[in-house]
Amino acid sequence: MYDVADVRAQFPILSREINGKPLVYLDNGASAQKPQVVLDAITRGYAEEYSNVHRGLHTLSSISTERYEGTRDVVRRFLNAPSQDEIVFNTGTTEGINMIAYGWAMPRMEPGDEIVLSIMEHHANIVPWHFLRERQGVKIKWVDVDAKGDLDPQAVIDAIGPKTKLVAVTHMSNVLGTVVDVKAICEGAREKGVPVLVDGSQAAVHMPVDVQEIGCDFYAITGHKLYGPSGSGAIFVKKARMAEMRPFMGGGDMIDQVTRDTVTWNAPPMKFEAGTPSIVSTIGMGVALDWMLELGLDNIAAHERRLRDRAIERFKGLNWLNLQGQSEGKGAIFSFTIEGGAHAHDISTVLDKKGIAVRAGTHCAMPLMEHLGTGATCRASFGLYNTEAEVDRLVEALELCHELFA
Amino acid sequence: MYDVADVRAQFPILSREINGKPLVYLDNGASAQKPQVVLDAITRGYAEEYSNVHRGLHTLSSISTERYEGTRDVVRRFLNAPSQDEIVFNTGTTEGINMIAYGWAMPRMEPGDEIVLSIMEHHANIVPWHFLRERQGVKIKWVDVDAKGDLDPQAVIDAIGPKTKLVAVTHMSNVLGTVVDVKAICEGAREKGVPVLVDGSQAAVHMPVDVQEIGCDFYAITGHKLYGPSGSGAIFVKKARMAEMRPFMGGGDMIDQVTRDTVTWNAPPMKFEAGTPSIVSTIGMGVALDWMLELGLDNIAAHERRLRDRAIERFKGLNWLNLQGQSEGKGAIFSFTIEGGAHAHDISTVLDKKGIAVRAGTHCAMPLMEHLGTGATCRASFGLYNTEAEVDRLVEALELCHELFA
Repeated sequence: MYDVADVRAQFPILSREINGKPLVYLDNGASAQKPQVVLDAITRGYAEEYSNVHRGLHTLSSISTERYEGTRDVVRRFLNAPSQDEIVFNTGTTEGINMIAYGWAMPRMEPGDEIVLSIMEHHANIVPWHFLRERQGVKIKWVDVDAKGDLDPQAVIDAIGPKTKLVAVTHMSNVLGTVVDVKAICEGAREKGVPVLVDGSQAAVHMPVDVQEIGCDFYAITGHKLYGPSGSGAIFVKKARMAEMRPFMGGGDMIDQVTRDTVTWNAPPMKFEAGTPSIVSTIGMGVALDWMLELGLDNIAAHERRLRDRAIERFKGLNWLNLQGQSEGKGAIFSFTIEGGAHAHDISTVLDKKGIAVRAGTHCAMPLMEHLGTGATCRASFGLYNTEAEVDRLVEALELCHELFA
Repeated sequence: MYDVADVRAQFPILSREINGKPLVYLDNGASAQKPQVVLDAITRGYAEEYSNVHRGLHTLSSISTERYEGTRDVVRRFLNAPSQDEIVFNTGTTEGINMIAYGWAMPRMEPGDEIVLSIMEHHANIVPWHFLRERQGVKIKWVDVDAKGDLDPQAVIDAIGPKTKLVAVTHMSNVLGTVVDVKAICEGAREKGVPVLVDGSQAAVHMPVDVQEIGCDFYAITGHKLYGPSGSGAIFVKKARMAEMRPFMGGGDMIDQVTRDTVTWNAPPMKFEAGTPSIVSTIGMGVALDWMLELGLDNIAAHERRLRDRAIERFKGLNWLNLQGQSEGKGAIFSFTIEGGAHAHDISTVLDKKGIAVRAGTHCAMPLMEHLGTGATCRASFGLYNTEAEVDRLVEALELCHELFA
C-alpha cells in the first residue's frame, strides 16, 4: 500500500513553511525535491568516500568508482535497457539530446534532410535541432497536437519521408501532461528505417518505462526530476546507434590513446563521457532511482493518477479556469490561466503567498504555446509526495485568485 | 597565521582511516576533498531551499536563483574578472574547453589553420583540438618543455604563425607542477593578434589568479578540484570573445525566442548555459571559493610552498627515486617512479596499504609522458590540508616500496 504520509516524511524540505504556510510543492515538472536517502548518499559520498573515479588504485578511488559504475546498472534496470553499456551518464536531458545532435546527427545529415518533431517538445528537444537547421540546412518537420493535446502517432509516422533521418518526440508533455504513444511511433519509424529519440524527462518520473518494449533508439532522462541531485542524468543509446556515434566532448577518460598526431577512443559508454563526471550527483541519482523502484513505479503512477483525477474533478467546478490539455491518460501536469485577465505571473505570486509553488511562463515550450494560441500559463505539476489535500489547497487558492483578479 | 590543524578539522573525510592507517590524501590533482561548509551548503540547498532556477516566481525558486546567480560574482572575484557576465558556469574544465572548441573555434577555423599547445597539456586541453584536426583539417603545433619541465614562453610565442588562430596552454602542469608564465605568453600572443586559452584546472587551486593581469581570453577552472562539489566549474570568457561565440549546447534558459522556423539567443552568459544547471553543486562551488578567499589564497600558496620544499628536501635523500619535473617555483605536485622496475601501480597499491592515496598512470597527459620517455608514474599532489608530517609519511612509505621492490 502506498503511504503518502510515510513518503512525505522522507523529504526534509516538505516540512518547511513558505510565507507562514506549509509548503505545497507543485513545481515538480521543473525539478523535484530529494528524499533523505539521497541527501545521505551525497553526504556519505563526500564525507566518507570521496575521490575521483576510474584509473585510481587507492581505496577511496575504488569505492567511488564502484558506486559510480554501479549506478549504470541501476539506470539499466530503471529503463529495462538490455545492457548497462548502453547507458551514458550526463548532467540531464539537455546534455543527452545535445550529445545525440552533435555526435550522431550532425555527421550524418545533409542539407535537405529532415527531423520530425512534435509541436509539444521542450526546448531541450528543439534547439539542438535548430542548430542543425541553421548550421547545415536540415529541415524540421512539425507534427501538431489536436485540440485536446493529443498527438496522433500515425501523423508522426506519416510525416516521415525519404529525407527523414530522425524522429525526436517527448514521451510526456511537460506542459499538457499528454502521454505519447511512443511505442507506436517507434514501430512505424522502424518500418521506414528511421531512428527515434524519446525525451523521457517527464515520463520517467511518472510511469514505468521499458525501452525495449518502446523500441526506441535513444531515451533521455534527467536525475534532478527523478528525485535525484541536480546535475545528474543519463541517456539510453541502443548499441547499434552508439557504434555510429562520434564522441561529443573530448577530454580524459573517453580516450584510449592520445599522441601529438592521433587520438583513439575508449570503448562505449566511456567514449561519450569526457572528463571528471558529476560523481556524487550521479551516485545520488542511482540512489534515487533505487528508492523509486522500491516504492514501486506502478504504485507511484497509481498514486499520481488519483491526484490527477482529484484535480480534474475539482477543476470542473471552476468554470473560469482555462485548462490546457485534456488528453485522456495524461499525467498530473496542469497548465492553466484564469479568465478575466489575471497574468500567470500574478497568479503564481498569489499562490506563493499561500505557500503553493507553481511555475508561470512558457515552460520552455514556445512553439506549443504559439500553437495553443496562449501566452504564459501557470503550471501545477504533481509528484509522488503530493496529496489530494494539496489539490484542494490549490483549488482554494485559485478561487482566491479568481476573486482577487475578477 | 595559517593553522593547518584547524583547516584539516573542517574536512570530515580526513579523520577517516584507510587500511587501519590515518588517510593521507595526496590525490588532489585528480580531485580535492570538501570542507564542512560545502557539505552544509549542499544539505541546506536540498533540504531547505531547493528549486529549479530562473523564471520561477515562487519563493524557493527565488532563493535558489539568488544563490546560484550570486555564485557568479564569487567566481568573478576569485579570478578578478572585470564582469560577472564574463563567467559561464559548467561542470568543469572539460566542458569549458569543449564549449570554446565548439562555440568559438570550430566556426572560425579553416583547414590549415593552427592551434598552438604545450606538450604538457591535459587531455581536456588536447582532445577538443584533435576534434578540430580530425573534423576540419586544423593543425596542432606542439611546444616542448625542457629537461627540467619548464616551458619557455618565448617558444610558445615563436610558434605562433600567420595561420595560428589560438594558443591553448595550461597554467600549471598536472603532472610536473610546472607553473607557466601565461602572462608573457598572452602579451606575445596579443601582439600577434591571437587569443589565448588558459587551462587553470590546477593553478587556480594553488595560487591566486588574476585574469586581467594575465591578459588571457579564456580561463577555465574546475569546482571539484577547488574543494567544491563534483560536477561544478566555470570559465572566464572575455566579453569580446563571447560576442564571437555561437552557443554550444541548446535547450532551455539559453534562448530568447523559439518558433518553428527560428531561434534567438538569451544574452551572455546565459546564452552558453543550456537547460537546468548543476544548481546545488554550483552554489557549493561558490561556498568553496569564498571559503578559500577567506583562508587567503596567498596563505594557501605559502603553506603549499612549505610542503613542496619539505618534499623536495626529503626526496633528495632518495637516490633511487626518479622525479619528473624540476622547475623552480613549481607547485606541490610530484610525479615519480622508483628505480628497479616497480610499476607505478604497484607503488600506488603499497602506499594505499599505508593509508596514502596517490594516483598512478599517465595522468591524462600521454603526449607529455611520451616526451618525457616515461610510461606510467605515481603522482603525489598536495592540497591546502596536507602537512609536513604527511610528506614524511609518504617518504617512509616510498622507502618501504624501494625495499620491497629492489
